[in-house]
Order: sequence, then C-alpha cells, then structure tokens
Amino acid sequence: MHRITEIAPQAIEGESFRIIAKEFDQQTGLCQKDIIPEQFAVIQRVIHATGDFSFAKLLHFHPGAIEAGCEAIRSGKNILTDVNMAVAGISKAILAPYGGKVICKVADPEIAQLALERGLTRSQAAIEEGMIENVGIVAIGNAPTALITIMKLIQEDKIRPELIVGVPVGFVNAPESKEILQEQDFPFITCEGRKGGTTVSVAIVNALLRLL
Amino acid sequence: MHRITEIAPQAIEGESFRIIAKEFDQQTGLCQKDIIPEQFAVIQRVIHATGDFSFAKLLHFHPGAIEAGCEAIRSGKNILTDVNMAVAGISKAILAPYGGKVICKVADPEIAQLALERGLTRSQAAIEEGMIENVGIVAIGNAPTALITIMKLIQEDKIRPELIVGVPVGFVNAPESKEILQEQDFPFITCEGRKGGTTVSVAIVNALLRLL
Repeated sequence: MHRITEIAPQAIEGESFRIIAKEFDQQTGLCQKDIIPEQFAVIQRVIHATGDFSFAKLLHFHPGAIEAGCEAIRSGKNILTDVNMAVAGISKAILAPYGGKVICKVADPEIAQLALERGLTRSQAAIEEGMIENVGIVAIGNAPTALITIMKLIQEDKIRPELIVGVPVGFVNAPESKEILQEQDFPFITCEGRKGGTTVSVAIVNALLRLL
Repeated sequence: MHRITEIAPQAIEGESFRIIAKEFDQQTGLCQKDIIPEQFAVIQRVIHATGDFSFAKLLHFHPGAIEAGCEAIRSGKNILTDVNMAVAGISKAILAPYGGKVICKVADPEIAQLALERGLTRSQAAIEEGMIENVGIVAIGNAPTALITIMKLIQEDKIRPELIVGVPVGFVNAPESKEILQEQDFPFITCEGRKGGTTVSVAIVNALLRLL
C-alpha cells in the first residue's frame, strides 16, 4: 500500500480541488481566470464528482442561473429531483437551516396510479405533482421526459421554478432535451451531449449550497 | 420540441443499449465480438449510465468476477456500499427475491461514535461494521479509504467477500487504490484512473443483477 498518500480524510476534498484548479487550464484548454468564479466553483465540483475534465467545456450556464439558484435556497424553497439517488446525494445538512427540503416523488405509490390515470410516465407525473410543493430548484440527471415536462409547464405559464438544473444522461432524447433547454430564457444549468447523470446534478446543487 | 424522438418510455433503455452496441467499435477502437458477453453487458450498462464510451477501456475484470458476483447474489448474500446514494440506485426489486439487501452504515450515528473510539474514518468504520452482515459484494464508488480498508481486511484473512466492485472516483488515492486492487488475486471489477463514482458502482451491480 506504499503508493497511498498519507492524508487526513478531511483534507482530501481540499487537496482534490487544488489539483483540479492546478491542472485545469492544461486539461481543458480553457483559462480558469476567464471563468466567473461562481461558475468555476460549480465546474470544479462536477469534475471532482466525475474525474472528468471534459465537463469544463460541456457545462453551460444561463447568466442568471447561479444567483437564481442561491436565492431560491436562501428563501427556503424546496429542491425537486427526478430520482431518489439525488435525494440521497444532495447535502441536506447545508440545505435544512434555510428551511428547504429535497423532494422526489417518482417511487410514491400514488404517482404510479396518477401516471396510469393521466397517461403520463411516472417521471412526468412525479414532476407535475412535485411542483406543487414550493419548489425553487428542479434538478434532473436522468429522465429527459422529466426535463421536457418541466419546460412545457413553464412555457404554458403553469409553473416558474427559479432554476432548472437539467443534465439528463443518455442516448435517446437526453442530448436533444438539453439543447432545447439551452435555448430557453429562464435560468438553467445544463451540459451538452450525452454525458450527465445524477452525480452531475447532485454536484451542481451541492456546489450552489456551498456558495451560500 | 420537434427534435424529441417519439418513443414509449419503456422502450428507451432498449434503444439506448442498441445505440451503444452499434457505435461501440467505432467509439472505443475495441471489437465488441472479442469481449466476453457478460463483461460486455457490464461495460454497456456503465456507458449507458455515464454517456461515456471511455469506460470500455478503463474497466478491468478479474476473470472470476462476474460469476462470483452472480453467485453471491443467488445465494442471498447482502451488498455493502460506501454511500447511501448507492443504496438508492441499486435495483432492490431484483435483489430482494434472492434474499439479499443493500447495506450502508456510513450515516448511522453509532458509526460516528465507533470511528472516534477506534481512530478510523467514518467510511472505514462503516465498512468494518458492515462486513459483519453476511456481505457477498462490496461496492465502493466514492471512498478510497473504504476500498483500502477492505483490501487490508482481506489480506489479514479477516473477511472474504465474493466480489469487490472498487471504482472510487477522484484525485487523491482513488487511482492508486484501484491500481492496488487490480494486483489482487480475489474477484474484483474496477476502472483505472480518476473516473468512477457511485453512478459507475451502481451500474456495475445493476448489470450483475440483470445477468441472473
């Protein structure tokens, strides 16, 4: 085990972030000093969570996204996710003092029933029902159908969350749904292409929580 | 929304797997037909979960890994994870009929106390305590300290899980811990380098569950 660096566990995250900042320009071909610091904090945490520097170029931010997300958290609003894995990953200890909770309804038995009645997918029904509960940030890492549902509800003026974190991973409708998100004029954080996922959506939300 | 493909939600996974198989050779420079089908099933599910074809070359399998993992599940053994996000992600509906459960102790209050008493990290204490509970597969996507702890306990002949899924993501000790894992002579599935994470550990375990 001689290859293992002796380091206090609580120092590992700081050291990881230092390595990411140090290697950033070379690994990405970008200039860290040209990136808005709050956006860099989000990018850095996504790289930390994936080990993948390519997210530096894939992530895209609506200009008002970070401030809108932080304001939603500060005002005690809830965070709605598409899967329960994201509920487990988001730092509820940081969120709780502001009054918000993390909500995901996709596995609730009444959602399965509702989806059947309305001819929706469970992801769609869970998002529609979840939006009732004072949601400020919607974080979607898996289901393009959930992201498409949210965008339709916003276009129909039925809902108005402060921020959409829309980073579904995948090969069918995920890249397309994220392209459409980038064309919208409400605050979003997204990543282009097939990459994304719950790890990425959780890292983005946790970066916002740490910016407060 | 005209760019969105009309497809039944239950057909999306199959279509995604078809696209991955179709593009595999070109995207990876490998030949799908030279890969053991059970290993390909695991690789394919990891690519599906990450949108990242580079895992085809990064994933490494001990020759007995997949059979050992499947046998552990079949015999009703439990799956121990390093983080609660993995508990949320593993397909418990497929696991349950075999009798196994998914266990993670890292957030248990008694683990914090135990870690303090023994001078361990919470990740280490959670793995040591978790191993008592008839564990067949240990799945680690986050904490290199958890993976190092497991390997030490095995070397000291204190435990003998059937399979280690060791894919911690990160910049400090994650690549090194996975290098050491690859040199061991017990069944493992790992990925080289910095990439990995809970998404990857969950995808590997869920691929095994679907192989049964």
